[in-house]
Formats: sequence, C-alpha cells, structure tokens
Amino acid sequence: MGAGNTFGKLFKVSTFGESHGKAIGGVIDGCPAGITIDFDALQKELDRRKPGQSSITTQRKESDTVEFLSGIFKGQTTGTPIGFNIPNADQNSKDYDHLKDIYRPSHADFSYDKKYGTRDHRGGGRSSARETACRVVAGALAKQILERRNISINAFVSRVGDEVVPLHYNELDFSLTDSNLVRCPHQPTAVRFQKLIEKVRDEGDTVGGVVTGVIRGLPAGLGEPVFDKFHARLGAAMLGINAVKGFDYGSGFDAPAMYGSDHNDVFQKNEAGELAAKTNHSGGVQGGITTGADVFFRVAFKPVATLMKNQQSADKKGDDVTIEGKGRHDPCVVHRAVPIVEAMAAISTLDMLLMSKTNKL
Amino acid sequence: MGAGNTFGKLFKVSTFGESHGKAIGGVIDGCPAGITIDFDALQKELDRRKPGQSSITTQRKESDTVEFLSGIFKGQTTGTPIGFNIPNADQNSKDYDHLKDIYRPSHADFSYDKKYGTRDHRGGGRSSARETACRVVAGALAKQILERRNISINAFVSRVGDEVVPLHYNELDFSLTDSNLVRCPHQPTAVRFQKLIEKVRDEGDTVGGVVTGVIRGLPAGLGEPVFDKFHARLGAAMLGINAVKGFDYGSGFDAPAMYGSDHNDVFQKNEAGELAAKTNHSGGVQGGITTGADVFFRVAFKPVATLMKNQQSADKKGDDVTIEGKGRHDPCVVHRAVPIVEAMAAISTLDMLLMSKTNKL
Amino acid sequence: MGAGNTFGKLFKVSTFGESHGKAIGGVIDGCPAGITIDFDALQKELDRRKPGQSSITTQRKESDTVEFLSGIFKGQTTGTPIGFNIPNADQNSKDYDHLKDIYRPSHADFSYDKKYGTRDHRGGGRSSARETACRVVAGALAKQILERRNISINAFVSRVGDEVVPLHYNELDFSLTDSNLVRCPHQPTAVRFQKLIEKVRDEGDTVGGVVTGVIRGLPAGLGEPVFDKFHARLGAAMLGINAVKGFDYGSGFDAPAMYGSDHNDVFQKNEAGELAAKTNHSGGVQGGITTGADVFFRVAFKPVATLMKNQQSADKKGDDVTIEGKGRHDPCVVHRAVPIVEAMAAISTLDMLLMSKTNKL
Amino acid sequence: MGAGNTFGKLFKVSTFGESHGKAIGGVIDGCPAGITIDFDALQKELDRRKPGQSSITTQRKESDTVEFLSGIFKGQTTGTPIGFNIPNADQNSKDYDHLKDIYRPSHADFSYDKKYGTRDHRGGGRSSARETACRVVAGALAKQILERRNISINAFVSRVGDEVVPLHYNELDFSLTDSNLVRCPHQPTAVRFQKLIEKVRDEGDTVGGVVTGVIRGLPAGLGEPVFDKFHARLGAAMLGINAVKGFDYGSGFDAPAMYGSDHNDVFQKNEAGELAAKTNHSGGVQGGITTGADVFFRVAFKPVATLMKNQQSADKKGDDVTIEGKGRHDPCVVHRAVPIVEAMAAISTLDMLLMSKTNKL
Repeated sequence: MGAGNTFGKLFKVSTFGESHGKAIGGVIDGCPAGITIDFDALQKELDRRKPGQSSITTQRKESDTVEFLSGIFKGQTTGTPIGFNIPNADQNSKDYDHLKDIYRPSHADFSYDKKYGTRDHRGGGRSSARETACRVVAGALAKQILERRNISINAFVSRVGDEVVPLHYNELDFSLTDSNLVRCPHQPTAVRFQKLIEKVRDEGDTVGGVVTGVIRGLPAGLGEPVFDKFHARLGAAMLGINAVKGFDYGSGFDAPAMYGSDHNDVFQKNEAGELAAKTNHSGGVQGGITTGADVFFRVAFKPVATLMKNQQSADKKGDDVTIEGKGRHDPCVVHRAVPIVEAMAAISTLDMLLMSKTNKL
Repeated sequence: MGAGNTFGKLFKVSTFGESHGKAIGGVIDGCPAGITIDFDALQKELDRRKPGQSSITTQRKESDTVEFLSGIFKGQTTGTPIGFNIPNADQNSKDYDHLKDIYRPSHADFSYDKKYGTRDHRGGGRSSARETACRVVAGALAKQILERRNISINAFVSRVGDEVVPLHYNELDFSLTDSNLVRCPHQPTAVRFQKLIEKVRDEGDTVGGVVTGVIRGLPAGLGEPVFDKFHARLGAAMLGINAVKGFDYGSGFDAPAMYGSDHNDVFQKNEAGELAAKTNHSGGVQGGITTGADVFFRVAFKPVATLMKNQQSADKKGDDVTIEGKGRHDPCVVHRAVPIVEAMAAISTLDMLLMSKTNKL
Repeated sequence: MGAGNTFGKLFKVSTFGESHGKAIGGVIDGCPAGITIDFDALQKELDRRKPGQSSITTQRKESDTVEFLSGIFKGQTTGTPIGFNIPNADQNSKDYDHLKDIYRPSHADFSYDKKYGTRDHRGGGRSSARETACRVVAGALAKQILERRNISINAFVSRVGDEVVPLHYNELDFSLTDSNLVRCPHQPTAVRFQKLIEKVRDEGDTVGGVVTGVIRGLPAGLGEPVFDKFHARLGAAMLGINAVKGFDYGSGFDAPAMYGSDHNDVFQKNEAGELAAKTNHSGGVQGGITTGADVFFRVAFKPVATLMKNQQSADKKGDDVTIEGKGRHDPCVVHRAVPIVEAMAAISTLDMLLMSKTNKL
Repeated sequence: MGAGNTFGKLFKVSTFGESHGKAIGGVIDGCPAGITIDFDALQKELDRRKPGQSSITTQRKESDTVEFLSGIFKGQTTGTPIGFNIPNADQNSKDYDHLKDIYRPSHADFSYDKKYGTRDHRGGGRSSARETACRVVAGALAKQILERRNISINAFVSRVGDEVVPLHYNELDFSLTDSNLVRCPHQPTAVRFQKLIEKVRDEGDTVGGVVTGVIRGLPAGLGEPVFDKFHARLGAAMLGINAVKGFDYGSGFDAPAMYGSDHNDVFQKNEAGELAAKTNHSGGVQGGITTGADVFFRVAFKPVATLMKNQQSADKKGDDVTIEGKGRHDPCVVHRAVPIVEAMAAISTLDMLLMSKTNKL
C-alpha cells in the first residue's frame, strides 16, 4: 500500500516526482513478458499530454521525453519491472518563492501543510498534474498491449463550459479526435470549444469540462463481483486524476430519473447469432462484470484553479493576500486530460484482464 | 487482493455469502483495540437496510440479526479480527428454479456465467444486494468509532425519478431523515418521493434515485495525494455498491460548466480565527486531502432491474423467453441504500483516518 | 492488509477466532470456479490436526467440524468467497480465570497486553494454535486443487528432541506417515519419537522438533524474482505458524559450510531427454523461481510453552507467581503441526501457481 | 502486488533494474514526512555493499552513487515518494554474450527462461545481487529513522565455511564489525574467515556463510499475531535476499532439541523495576509480537554459484557445455551481505513500527 502512489494490482504502476524536482518517473511492475514495445507510439501519447503543445495550453517548456532504465531487453518486455524517468527540464523554482507561505484557493497548499507539516511549494510539488505524465507512460504501454488483443480505448472532450457534443458517442469518428486542438471528434463543437477556451484565456480565467471514454472489444468476464467491480476500479482510476469531480458510466446520472422498464437491457441473439443486450444502459457492466458490450463513461473536470488574474486568499498566518495572476497556466485542462483518461482506463482494464486469467484453472 | 471481496487497507472488511446460502458474513480486520461496541446502535443500522421494513420494500422476511464470533471480549474490541455471521432465514431456493437458464435483463446472470462458467442462480447469488448487510455491520462499527471522535456521516435520499430535494444540504435537519419511509429529511419532498414509489410499485415497475452523503467533523489531512485521494477511495466505495451508476463530490458534474473565478474556494480567517475556505466547491478535499470542511457527495442509483411485470429476455441457448413478474422485490432501492452509503463512507473514512496516523512519526 | 490475519494474494485466506470464543472461521477468496470439493478428504485433514486424537496430544474435546456457508454450489466452487465456521465446543473459559493477570513464560500474554492494552486471556485467545484449524481448511482445499494437477505436498516429523530420521527424504515412503501417532514415515524412528514424547509427557515437560516438507510435481516458473521468491513466500507461511523458530530449504543451514564446486547443481539431460539438474542443493528453486525439481524444506518448532509441572513467572504488577501445571496440553506439537505445514505450503503454492498465469499473455 | 518487486506495507520500497541495464533504482513510498536525511551515512551503507571494495570482493567497478529525484525538499522528507537511481557504470555486456544460451549451474538462467520465455542474460539480469543496492538505499533511510528512536540494527558475519564465531552476540562489540574486511567483530575469528576466503578464492572456488542480526531497543508490541508475525515478516525479508537458504531467530534450529522447562523465558522484574524475561530463547518475539527484548536472528547463505574454475553444464538445447571460470566474482558474499541484512531488517522493522501506530486510537 504505502501512501497511495501505486495503482493496479497485477499490472501495477508506482509513480514519484514533483513539479520542479530533478525528474519524475516510476516503476511498472507485473507487465507480462514478451511484449514488443512501440516506443514512438508511446512517446506520442506523452506528447498529447505535454505542456506547450498549443496556444490553449500552458507555455511551460518540457519535452517530456521518457527514458526507460530496465525491464526491456532488445525492445521487448522481460517480465521484470520497468523503471523510467522523465527529467524536469524546467526547474526554475524561483518563480514560486512568493507562494511558499500562501495558500492558493482550491490548490493543495493548505491540505498538504496540514497533512505533512511541510511541503515542496514549487509549482504545486507532488500535487502538480505533471505527475500524470508517469501515468501516461504506463497507460500507453497498457494500451498497446490491449490494442493487440483488439481492445481499444478512446477518450474525447465532450463538454467545455456550457458547450456540449450533441451526438451519441456511437455517431462519432474517433480518428478525428486529434484533428483539432481541443480533442473533440465533432468538428463543429470543437470550434465552439476552442472559441470558448480562448475567450476564457483572454479574460485570465479558466473553465471546466467533461471527458468521455469508450472501451471497445472487451471480453465478457472482467471485473470482480463485490468491491472490485469493473466500474469501481475504473472510477477509482478516474477520480485519482487531478481536478476530477465526478465519474459515471452507462446511464450514469441519468439513471435516477429512469424507470426499470426503460432502463433494462434485454438480451437477444444479434445478427451474428450471439447473445447480447439490445440496449446498453448498463454501460457494458452488469453485476460489476463486463458483458462484452462497450464500456463508456464520463469524467467531470473542474476549472483549473490557477488564474491569470488576481485573486484574494490568505497566507499561513491567516492574513489576507492578493495572488497575482502570472506564470504559465492552462485555461482549460480537459484536452490535455484526454491521454490521461485513456492511460488510466488502459491500466485499469489490463489489470482486470490479467486478474481474469485466474478465475478458472 | 483475492477476488475483490475485501475493502479497506488498515480497517478492512472481507465479506462472503450468497442470497440463498446458509448465511452471509465477514471478517473485520484492523479494528483498533479497546473500542466499546454499542450493539443496539449497530443492529439498528442493519434494521434500516433489512427487507420487509415497510410497504415500499421487498417483503422477503429476514431479521438480519448479526452474530459476532470473535474479536470482542467483554463488549470491547481486542484488536483481533471480528468474525460475524448473518443467517439467511429465507432459503426457499425453489422459487428460483425457473430462472436457472435464463439471463434476466440488466442482472449479473449473463456476466457471471461468462466469467465463472457456473453460478449460484438462487436470488442473484453473490450479486444480490443481500451481501451489503455485511458492509453495514462493518460500517456501523466504523461509524461508532468516528462519532466518538466527532466525525458524523449522514446520507439521505435527494432524488427519486424526477423528484428532487430543492434545498442545499446545509438547510436540512438530518435528524429527520428516518422520520419517513423514504429517508428524506425534507418532509414535502419525502411525500412526493413516497407517492412516486407507490405509483411505480403499483405499475409493477421500478425507479432510480440519488443518495447524497455528508461527512462532517473530519480533520484536515486525510487521504493520499495521488491514486488514493480521499474522494477516489470514497468513490470506489460507492461505485462498489449494487446498482450505482455514478459518483460525484463537491461541485461534481456542475463543475464542468463553471469558471475558475467562480469555483475557487478562497481562504480566509473564520469567526473562530481559524483559516478556512469561504466556499466549498471543493467538497472538503483539495489535492486529494481533506481540508476540514464538509465532504459531500452524490451517488446515482439505477432503477431496480427486477420488475413485477412481464419482460422479454433470452435463455442460455439464445431463445426468447418471457420472464414473469413475481416474487418479492423493491420498487425503488435508494431508501434502503442510505445505511449502505453511510456504512461504506464510514469504512473508507476510518481507514484513511488510521492511515493518517502514519504520515508523521 | 488489515492486521495480518490474511495470507495469500490471489488465493487468499482470512481467519478469525479465539481459543474460547463462539467459533473460529474464515473466508477463502480467489478460489478458482468449478472445483469439485472432496469434503471427506478435507475433514480428514482437520482430524489430523484436531486435539484429543491420541495419548500424546491434548485431551481438549473438539470435533473440529467445518461448516461451509457460501461459495460452493452443488459441491462445486463458484469463484465467490468461501465462508466457513468451526464452532468451539469447549468454551469452559472458567478454567482460565486464574491466568487473567499472569504472564506465562514464553506465551503471548505479555506482548499482547503491551500491544493492545487488553486481551482475551481465555486459553491464549487469538494466539492459541486453535486458529490454525482455519488454515487447514483453506490448505486442504488448496491441496486438492494442486493434487489434481499432480502437485503433491507431504510433510512429516523428521526430528523430536535429539532423535532424528537418519534417511534422506527420497528414501522414505510418505504413505506411511500417518501409520503412527507421531507422523514419521520411518517406523524405527517413529518408535523412538513416541517413546521420547511419552517420557517428556510423564515428566510434565515438553519437547521441540522439526517438520520436513516436500513439494513434488511443481512446474518450473513459480515464484517471483525479488521479494516474492518462491521460498520467501513459503518461508513466511511457515514462520507464521505458532511455535516456529526457523525455516530453511534445499541445503539450508548446511549451505554455509559448503564450497561452490560441491553445492552447484549442474544441468544435464535426464533419461527422459529433459534438461534438469543432477543434484538439488537448490531445493527446487533458483533465483526465487521453481525449476521443476522437488522443493524441500525444514521447519523448526520450539517445545510447547505450557508445562504440566509448576513454573515460576510474574503477574501484571511484577509480583512473582507460581503457575500450576494443570489443564490439557500437548507434550509435543510437531505431529499435529504436520497438516498445518502441508496446509500453509499448499496455500502458498497455489497462490504462486495462480500468479504465474499472469506472467505471459 | 504486481510481480513481487515491492517490500513493505506502510513503509514500502519498489525496486527496478538489471545488472547491466542503464540504471537500477526504486521508489520509497510511505516514508513519514519531516525526516532529515543524513546523506553521508546513507552513502556509506552503499559503500559497504558495493563491489570492488577489497581483495575479497568482485573487482567490478561501480561507485554505487545514489541520486535522489523526489520526495526530499531542503534535506527533509516531504511524505511523498522518494524516487532514486543508481547508474550502472559498467555496462560492458559483451562479456556475457557467450552465456546467452547456457544455463549456468545454480543460477536463475534456466528458471527465468521457463517463467518468462525470455531473459536479459547480461550478468544475471534481474537476478543479479546488484539489485540489492536499492534495498540498501531504502534500508539505510529506515535505519536512520529507527536510530533516532534508539532502535539499533547490527549484523555481522558469524560463520564462513567451517569457521564460526565462538561467542554469544552479547559478548561482541559491534563497533568493531567494520574494522576488518570480513565484517566480523571478533578479531581472531575475522582472521580465520579472511584466510579461508582467500584460500577459496585462490582455488577459484567459493564458500558459504552465516550473517547474524541483532535488533535492539525495540518497543514491545510490534508485529501482528497471525500471518504477519514480527519474525515472519523479518524472515520473508531475509529469504528474499539472493543466495539465502535459511532463517531462524531466537533459539532457532536449536529449539527442536530443547525441553520446555529449559526453553521457557520466565518473567520477573529487572533491576530497573520493569517486567522482563530472564532469558531470551524467544528471540524478542512472543506470539509474533515483540516483547522489548533483543530480536536476534541468523541468515544462512550458500556459496556463490559463479566459480573462477571451469564447470560443466548444459545449454538450452540440452547439450553439454564447459563454462570457463572468468570475469569478476566474489569468492564469498557474506561480508557484502551484512549491509543488505541490516537494510532489510530496518525496512521490515520500520514498517511494523508504523503499523503499530494503528493498533489503538
């Protein structure tokens, strides 16, 4: 267990690192042996998350280049732990000296101090979203393993502020997700998302959003019946991502308004002669166990807490302070969160896939 | 780990049991020594969950009397594991013989068969919500321990179908929650909830709902920064409850529509001269760690899958079948879920409270 | 984790219960589905451990009948947790009232009090070897599963006091182990063991001994390379048994005196044309991973701490007391430990067998 | 869990790295906040383990300099995970090309191939004792934390081949342990050890030995009663070290020959008026829980498997091969194992110390 810096049971990633320390990194333990890694595809996932990639992300300069240190021999996994580092190019921690005694609104400054009696105040320290790059490394690897078994994981931005994608995910073409800066496969909505984010950025403000995820090609039988339901593990994975305020799957928060006779997914033979449900309010999970239908889910993100305009707050002594809006920050985080959501979904799914190999002898 | 029948790390409950086996039960490990147990209060929590308690719950007859077998000596916990059983009075499994080859819509029949190649089909077997009685045992114990440290956990029904409680939780008096059958502390809404549930019941249908939970009196510093954020553990606890489709906390699914300048919780000295945030969109958690403010959250429940009217579905061979609506079932499950939500919140909270004792030496 | 009352990762048993409480019992989680249980064979293992079985065991009366409560349907495991109870027939706790403030020599009275500030003093409470009956339940089940895969686990008494079995385990016929009261397959030594135990018993004293275990038929590839080496997990399993003072495997404590040129196990083709080592100083494990050769190990037991003659000690206040030798106790525990050693070896082995299914995809 | 590359529950270390990869390293999670690290003392522990330190160790050149990447701010732990790397200076993997299809006697070549279907054959890959440097990093940190609480951990070489230290550990002065190359605090024996090792080295052979460990100043109450007994966790820690064949504590493998009346540790008031046992056959642990007396234990090491003289073995195809004795190897490993034994004892002890903080509220 340790202090919660590890995710996964059989396929397990432990991360370390602060925003402005020497490096971030981690250890992936339990990766099956004999997997050929596509390093380019893996780095591409990191590039999707990295800062400075466009006009609507923070301008911090980080190449986010991952260096693998172990567990891979001649391009293949060996079954032993995969250690990796991502150096922090930007360690200009002086930028943060003025914040060391200040509790920024809706940041982790106050709660860290209460918990540990000390904290690395530079750029949010451990609470910085920079840590999520390590999850993307592990997740991109998991995604590759799943893809070769025809399990695909796709996430996209489905909402920014008041703007929403008006279509069901089945009507979208996920190959278009990365065709725009906001990672929305519905082009007209993407335009509105971008406009809204630019407006918010120009006002020095930030805005929230929703990332939707879809897992296709899952075999039936993943997930455990009671506490480790497929969606409970997936939900824990999502709720562990910075700035996430909610998770639902299938009918989700629409389910409370529904009647059983409408909500129930009736089984029948499909065209291929296989038994499957006609509808999928269940979101691909029944009794905590996958049915083979798509698992789809939503992840709600709050607006970024760091603003580019001045804010009131207090310092350690309780005195009022004004925090100046400066530095390099994201007006909206959801498009950068897309690869993180995919990564955590991949880790969670691969973990349960491995677990399912032990259900029968 | 096993197969996911255990929740908690330091305060840990493992459950066992099927709907129509001899008994359900569990083991609570890691309960601190020297706790005097209020057995009446504990049984009362079980009574809140048990079937047959009113006209709007299933009429199955179960006294749900818990028998403790170990770990308690002269009314006090000894620090050793607490084993307990709850006998299944009603084992009339013949009632279910007609269902043994049928996949009921939105039940776990199909997914269990796919996972295990076999299943105990009687009353849902392990997937029955009957298992949650064991969580209530552990949770009621945790709740007592927390209450003596002035941490209170209250849940209530905030939505049934289209009907919602129109007030903020801070305007409600939780001592009224159990004053009506639907466990809603807002009496006018409770009347509407009950009417709606009765209407649905009379139609042989079911309806979903939302349970809201509030944890007060938490010290700052609980929860771990990365994967084991306070709300990630709490969310996993909730998503592991039967019929749950979503979880959010604080601003939750409203956060995506908000701007940072509105969402941020600004710190200032309160009347008592203590530093605290003026608002609480954060839901009492920042950076995954409690701030000392209330933690509040919502849990979305789908409508019960078992209807009292006929439904179409298929059997193992894929042939169409009609499932007759008979037996004893709940038209709505949310009021019975209230003690379960409280129980899982209590287990999760106590676990993280124990964990926090190891942050500093 | 909880407080260490759980063993195993994938095949996992959690136990509860005190010597003189209502019952002992446990939960087996992660047992694969579809296993037909031989209940008679399982009870027979419990009978091998139970008290009162012969003139050289304690005369406490316990039938040690296990009652299964869940996880089994029509004689087969379902993949869901297997809950079980073993009632304590003998709850005559009055016998122990004189001991409640006394710290018996080499018992857990003192250390429990220091740890928990309280203890169930009746018959040793949780520290009683009675708890091991629960391990035998889980272990006997694991043993059955392993046997059907041609993995056999045999333990026997190889030493009592100064008397030792003079032969290598390969020269013994394990079908004779249970042909005598002392569970030693070498009949002449068994006679000497019994004589020594009777002499010690008649003197009101106790004596230690060694149990040797042999696992045959293991596939190569079980165990993990670093901390979870096959023998590290096995050793932890053995060291968790009451009264155990040491564990070694293969050349064990003879290895320190050896030279590498003698100790090394040289690979060559065997008669069947398969590659295997000529010798087995390694004890079937190299680099923490099984080679397919026999795993053999020794477990050292101290003499039972409860004597039938008077002893000095002190009470809580530090005053000297004389403890009278009375009650019903074992003059030697090793023959009753044989099924416990087999049980823990079986749990540990099955757990690693399941784990090995996740090494490759 | 992952694949067993993590040790500890609350204070937890995960390691990665192969003998001839880019680097080895790890993540320490759960280290309490606010600990000032003595980096020099820590590096000194690494130096005690590193290769090339004397004429009786391998001549491989490694400075074993640890680089900390996170979790430490201004010289103090922050409570967040401590990531660290130790670069592999010597990556001359060509030296091992001739071994890639050969199964060396008593190495992990064969078992790794069977487990994973592939392996990094360079210098033993993951099975190399090089990995233990990472344990020393975590262990040295744990040792510092314990020392400030007056808990000391000392190990020393008590046997090499047939030569043994003739005194009880209480008669030795541990400040002398590092005064000779063989890390034996009894100077006359140290001379005999060194002579024996040099003789063995000159013959191209290797020899085994025993490391004895002593933990002093432990509070009573550490360890958990059933599976996680103090000595069971400690034993697992030791059995996870490369080349270890056995572990015992207290009376250990001498206990089987003893009578209860001799073995029992009788409680009485000591000179300070505190209750304590007169003798310590228990080895400081009763019922799995520390009593406050010294914990002492022995760890048996086999002779190093790599010889400097020619040996027979087989290759993958089963053909006989002769392995030439060349390269840089240790004639005896026990003096280098001393800091590793101390490190693992420290990790295990600190972990249980943290755990004990949750026994009572």
